[in-house]
Amino acid sequence: MTEAAGPGTGTVAGSLTTVEQYQSAILRAIAPLPPVAAELADAEGCVLAEDVTAAVSLPSFDNSSMDGYAVRAADTGHSSERSPATLPVTAEIAAGDTADYRLAPGTAMRIMTGARLPAGADAVVPVEWTNGAGDRVEIYRPAEHGNAVRYAGGDAIEGETLLERGVRLRPMHIAVAASAGRTTVKVQPRPRVAVLSTGDELTEPGTPLLPGQIWDSNSYMIAAAAREAGAVACRRSGVPDDPAGVLPALEEQLTHADLLITTGGVSMGGEHDVVKAALQELGTMAFRKVAVQPGMPQGFGTIGADRVPIFTLPGNPVSAYVSFQLFVRPALAALQDTDDLRLPAVRATLAAAVRSPQGRRSYLRGVLSGGQVSPLTGQGSHQIAALGRANALIIVPEQETGLPAGVTVDVVVLP
Amino acid sequence: MTEAAGPGTGTVAGSLTTVEQYQSAILRAIAPLPPVAAELADAEGCVLAEDVTAAVSLPSFDNSSMDGYAVRAADTGHSSERSPATLPVTAEIAAGDTADYRLAPGTAMRIMTGARLPAGADAVVPVEWTNGAGDRVEIYRPAEHGNAVRYAGGDAIEGETLLERGVRLRPMHIAVAASAGRTTVKVQPRPRVAVLSTGDELTEPGTPLLPGQIWDSNSYMIAAAAREAGAVACRRSGVPDDPAGVLPALEEQLTHADLLITTGGVSMGGEHDVVKAALQELGTMAFRKVAVQPGMPQGFGTIGADRVPIFTLPGNPVSAYVSFQLFVRPALAALQDTDDLRLPAVRATLAAAVRSPQGRRSYLRGVLSGGQVSPLTGQGSHQIAALGRANALIIVPEQETGLPAGVTVDVVVLP
Repeated sequence: MTEAAGPGTGTVAGSLTTVEQYQSAILRAIAPLPPVAAELADAEGCVLAEDVTAAVSLPSFDNSSMDGYAVRAADTGHSSERSPATLPVTAEIAAGDTADYRLAPGTAMRIMTGARLPAGADAVVPVEWTNGAGDRVEIYRPAEHGNAVRYAGGDAIEGETLLERGVRLRPMHIAVAASAGRTTVKVQPRPRVAVLSTGDELTEPGTPLLPGQIWDSNSYMIAAAAREAGAVACRRSGVPDDPAGVLPALEEQLTHADLLITTGGVSMGGEHDVVKAALQELGTMAFRKVAVQPGMPQGFGTIGADRVPIFTLPGNPVSAYVSFQLFVRPALAALQDTDDLRLPAVRATLAAAVRSPQGRRSYLRGVLSGGQVSPLTGQGSHQIAALGRANALIIVPEQETGLPAGVTVDVVVLP
Repeated sequence: MTEAAGPGTGTVAGSLTTVEQYQSAILRAIAPLPPVAAELADAEGCVLAEDVTAAVSLPSFDNSSMDGYAVRAADTGHSSERSPATLPVTAEIAAGDTADYRLAPGTAMRIMTGARLPAGADAVVPVEWTNGAGDRVEIYRPAEHGNAVRYAGGDAIEGETLLERGVRLRPMHIAVAASAGRTTVKVQPRPRVAVLSTGDELTEPGTPLLPGQIWDSNSYMIAAAAREAGAVACRRSGVPDDPAGVLPALEEQLTHADLLITTGGVSMGGEHDVVKAALQELGTMAFRKVAVQPGMPQGFGTIGADRVPIFTLPGNPVSAYVSFQLFVRPALAALQDTDDLRLPAVRATLAAAVRSPQGRRSYLRGVLSGGQVSPLTGQGSHQIAALGRANALIIVPEQETGLPAGVTVDVVVLP
């Protein structure tokens, strides 16, 4: 699977920024967050910010891989069912027994799985090869030197690198870190994302709607998308789309957030120049038209003393969603010092004809199944119900105004 | 991708349970948890336990898809750059404006994206087609009936099913639920899992090790694996492996947990019959040998008045991990009333020869890359460092004692 960047830089109208130009401009402005120490129990899913080495060799002592009897292999040399070796059992060593045992020649010690091999022993006879009880054990098969013994360092040697910086910690990595003696690890912190949906038309879902009002879905969706991309996210809904509404709401978040996202309003056209101008006073904002559909009007910059990155996404929910995946997701990856959030890109056969505006790359909602991708009915930027049925975005290159059924297309698999 | 069940029921020794028999026995004992109402902000990643229908049509009112002028299309009929239609602008309608407007013939109203279309209007002229300012607007292109209008119900009609029970909620689904007016949804709760690692040899990672002691990794790993599979998990380490240690620790969890997992000790052989017998008094435990490598000794049952499912997994970390993915993961899916946790299964070319015990299906740790899978060095059940490098399990069927390089094998992709 390759990066979901689409088919390179296509032909776009002169006044538009290409998707790749815009992605590059964003990434130039974003630096990884400083690493933090995380409790191991909280580290799953975070990106490791240090190499983890073995504090001791693994295992740190020779031990038995089975329940049985620690012996000198030579003492079992010619044993058989008919003519067992019979050895006195001089001790029982449980896993976790920290005493020092020394095996005398011609004797055996009962030993449990994981228990330390006594000095002088060089093999373990599994209990299944013996009569399995009593002060004297009958051994029915010879054990080779090293039988059922796990030697110290057999898994890893002290100081060996077990996990490399940059890996996103999965359950087995958590086990490796614990085995290496770690209860805390240095990780890239989960970016703290604040999502503000702006617009006087927005109300909380479920509240009675007056004509002209809609229930806010963007703040819920974008916060969820940020969490899916490894962030912690909070949301605030229905911020009035004027300087007196937007600016205090943003400034309030500046000390809490590593990245800000607004949806609606401020990304729009001339009507909102007042908010845009005010935003530009907080930092270095750039408002662009990107050669993409949906999601053409985009704003990005950094604001405040800490130069917190901010995205002003379009207000149509499908536009906001696609913009998030194309532009915000790579920024969240960069904050986590990783590129493992690239969405899978595949090629598939287009099941029905599609249209696309000239000079803009379309990302159409579709259902990918078994090498075929079907465009959904309802490609409007407001048609959230169709997005809810999609599992993929169909890419139509900038220079195309449509594609017929049956052609092979690039498809981005949605998270 | 198909279910990671492996190549059917192979030939196993008579006393062993097959992987599929054991999986079936487990699933027969597990019922989905009762659904709960979840705040939408907490519902991402949970399995939806109801259909979500549109509380109102989406959109719920005709509105403009662009910034422009609401008009009667007929009034723009023959307008052109040279001969614009000029209409008086009688109002400005912002998004969220809930007043009732009525457009008189031969007039226009300024309208913003998302704002409600005034009664009497049947089209929107984009601002780009006009002189864009003033009390009278000059219109340079005729607008067709319905131009830039999003009709009520164009995305979904009231009562339409937008999300179906059983879907695991992803960010776009959260948006759909919010758009449908929901701030809470009925979901399958995340199963509460308690993980207890038993064994006198276990100490917390990083504490000084006496000879014979090891740092506990299982409780961290299995808790992380449970979280990865949609659960919330807590862990307790180093429970003494005797009835006085294990039973109170389990009973303490019975009222808090939907599923219990122990690792080590109680799953082992004859030495631990006391714990096994005591466990059986708490419920219906069955201890079996499963035809699998690693992870042959398995215990499963339900205990306590609420018949909480419990798994007693082997203590070797690799055995515990593989057992979790093969046996506990499907149980967690069943508690969530879904089968979407099946691990992806692919076929790949084996890069090096492997060995396997006769009569048991091996799941060997490997690295899958580009259609080829390479078995890792260090296939011992205690070799956690190698597991940390794996991204896949290579299946060797029961009847095989080895496979040569170059053959095609079934591979399970690890989470």
